[in-house]
Amino acid sequence: MGQETKYKIIEAGARIIHHKGYNHTGIQEVIKAAGVPKGSFYFYFNSKEDFGLHVIDYFNDMYLQMIDPILQQKELSALRRIEKILDYYIGLFKELNYTCGCPIGNLSQEMGDLSEAFGTKLVSSVALIAGIYKDLLDEAKETDQVSLEMNTQKTAEFIVSSWHGSLIRMKIDKNIEPLELHKQFIFNILDR
Amino acid sequence: MGQETKYKIIEAGARIIHHKGYNHTGIQEVIKAAGVPKGSFYFYFNSKEDFGLHVIDYFNDMYLQMIDPILQQKELSALRRIEKILDYYIGLFKELNYTCGCPIGNLSQEMGDLSEAFGTKLVSSVALIAGIYKDLLDEAKETDQVSLEMNTQKTAEFIVSSWHGSLIRMKIDKNIEPLELHKQFIFNILDR
Repeated sequence: MGQETKYKIIEAGARIIHHKGYNHTGIQEVIKAAGVPKGSFYFYFNSKEDFGLHVIDYFNDMYLQMIDPILQQKELSALRRIEKILDYYIGLFKELNYTCGCPIGNLSQEMGDLSEAFGTKLVSSVALIAGIYKDLLDEAKETDQVSLEMNTQKTAEFIVSSWHGSLIRMKIDKNIEPLELHKQFIFNILDR
Repeated sequence: MGQETKYKIIEAGARIIHHKGYNHTGIQEVIKAAGVPKGSFYFYFNSKEDFGLHVIDYFNDMYLQMIDPILQQKELSALRRIEKILDYYIGLFKELNYTCGCPIGNLSQEMGDLSEAFGTKLVSSVALIAGIYKDLLDEAKETDQVSLEMNTQKTAEFIVSSWHGSLIRMKIDKNIEPLELHKQFIFNILDR
């Protein structure tokens, strides 16, 4: 029962933070959206920062859950799976009317300078995301889909960084073009 | 005298917003940092949003002032001037201990979903930055430095987006590597 309440708070908080950022999100607002008793927040979390760190874990879990079905499609080539991940998110952001962006990218931008605890945790989140691309690129290298000279770690990092930048652009343009452009440039790099 | 006070408020506000974001910046804090009378804020600005829009204009002006000396170095090739712009910012962010990032990218991420007025203004800011790269790429094309098939508009947009993403990464990694990686991938694309 306790864990359920805690989860409700995290889930509601994640939704609000994803939309309007961490600093702009109030604890009362989260509690209200979660529909849990007012006093419960500080029963489960030591501070707003502690809560924020749990929300990052939640975002990581969501990410893995979302892309796992694609990663499991071993009948597809590694490059095709990378393409499917990008297409999946392109579809998702169309549904979201080009709002929100990547919560990990957003929090890195917002909190990187303001909280060392956030920074450290977000470094792990980005490593998790980049690690998935690196594994896929390594597989692509083994199966001769990309150049043998490719530095798969660096390429994976660049895919993630440039993706985060494209999402920033999407949020002001309010259309899908920045994400399509990202995909086009990334595949130009991979197809070399 | 009035314009001087207004400028002081904008300048102090820009510094604080660059460091900690727009929503997290309080009007009282800006007034205090500017060292101007408490009541002066609403004499010069209709609202916090109106103030924020003036701050974006200030950031645009700063950007143009910063890179103009590089753009004027017509004795350098267009690609070399692009490299110098990136190197200039790499140097700047080393001095800033990998903090702050690009104020236009930051505000796009933070405010893109929250204020249409910010969104519209930020689209112009990004167009201004991308326009500078496009002009340089067009010159590079004319002088045979890049492929004749290059879409210089799209390439310019991708340089800016991926730069903004690299700055996000810099803010959590607290080192220069994401910016060096950006430069490396962009020049791989340009050198094709």
